[in-house]
Amino acid sequence: MNSTQLVVKMILDRWYGSIKNFDAVLNAITDEQLQKEIAPTKNRGIYLLGHLIAVHDDMLILLDMGNKLYPELNKPFIDSPDKTVAEIPSATELRACWSNQCEVMKQKMDSLKTEEWFEKHTAVSAEDFRKEPHRNKLNIIITRISHLQYHTGQLALLK
Amino acid sequence: MNSTQLVVKMILDRWYGSIKNFDAVLNAITDEQLQKEIAPTKNRGIYLLGHLIAVHDDMLILLDMGNKLYPELNKPFIDSPDKTVAEIPSATELRACWSNQCEVMKQKMDSLKTEEWFEKHTAVSAEDFRKEPHRNKLNIIITRISHLQYHTGQLALLK
Repeated sequence: MNSTQLVVKMILDRWYGSIKNFDAVLNAITDEQLQKEIAPTKNRGIYLLGHLIAVHDDMLILLDMGNKLYPELNKPFIDSPDKTVAEIPSATELRACWSNQCEVMKQKMDSLKTEEWFEKHTAVSAEDFRKEPHRNKLNIIITRISHLQYHTGQLALLK
Repeated sequence: MNSTQLVVKMILDRWYGSIKNFDAVLNAITDEQLQKEIAPTKNRGIYLLGHLIAVHDDMLILLDMGNKLYPELNKPFIDSPDKTVAEIPSATELRACWSNQCEVMKQKMDSLKTEEWFEKHTAVSAEDFRKEPHRNKLNIIITRISHLQYHTGQLALLK
């Protein structure tokens, strides 16, 4: 394994490790607790869960891995702040979406070769990518690990 | 720039980006707000700040970059849970430590060459490192980005 292969593995390991940490937090929280705000006047746990699924769905597009699994989650969990959309899916439904999405993404991500991680993601033009080669698929994983960890720290407050 | 140099740059950029995000949150919070719990019965903001300085100080050791800057912060902010140590530094003092530490670490980190990031960190033996080459200095940065983001999401609740 050369150093490029090694560092791709390190980053993917951190992604899967972050998913595992999130799962541990989520599994320690009941559906009733998920309905609560993480702190007074802040987002509810269920909103954070829906938000993460919607953001990870967008990763499928950015990574050129096919269509979103749950495009209907974009409006309530990305376009809208919490507590402004009357009808959102139940905690049971969102838990099932999350778990299915993690499995689908793992399958797709595991099939990518090292060099494919350094290809451009779909939101950057070929011209810009020539000047900014860091705007690749691997960088999507790096930034989304940060995003996932940020919200895991918040969800953990409901335990 | 080859792909290994590129990915090291991507990871260091994410580290500095995370520090910048944390600074923006910290600067938006007053010393009085820092004394508050991030959520009822949870850690205070000031504890999270002290905790991050203590953990980053430990990175200096792991990265073989010299001594800790603030070894006295280990006991109140790593060994002890919040609200169990009577005397802790003031918010003003901790803000100054944080800012100085970020500067010192940047200077040391910027001087490392790409291949040096793939050397073993100090907490792994040479023998184990031969079998587990991912236990290198770069992986310390990857895991500490996650840790920093986790607590940034929590501190942001005090805004």
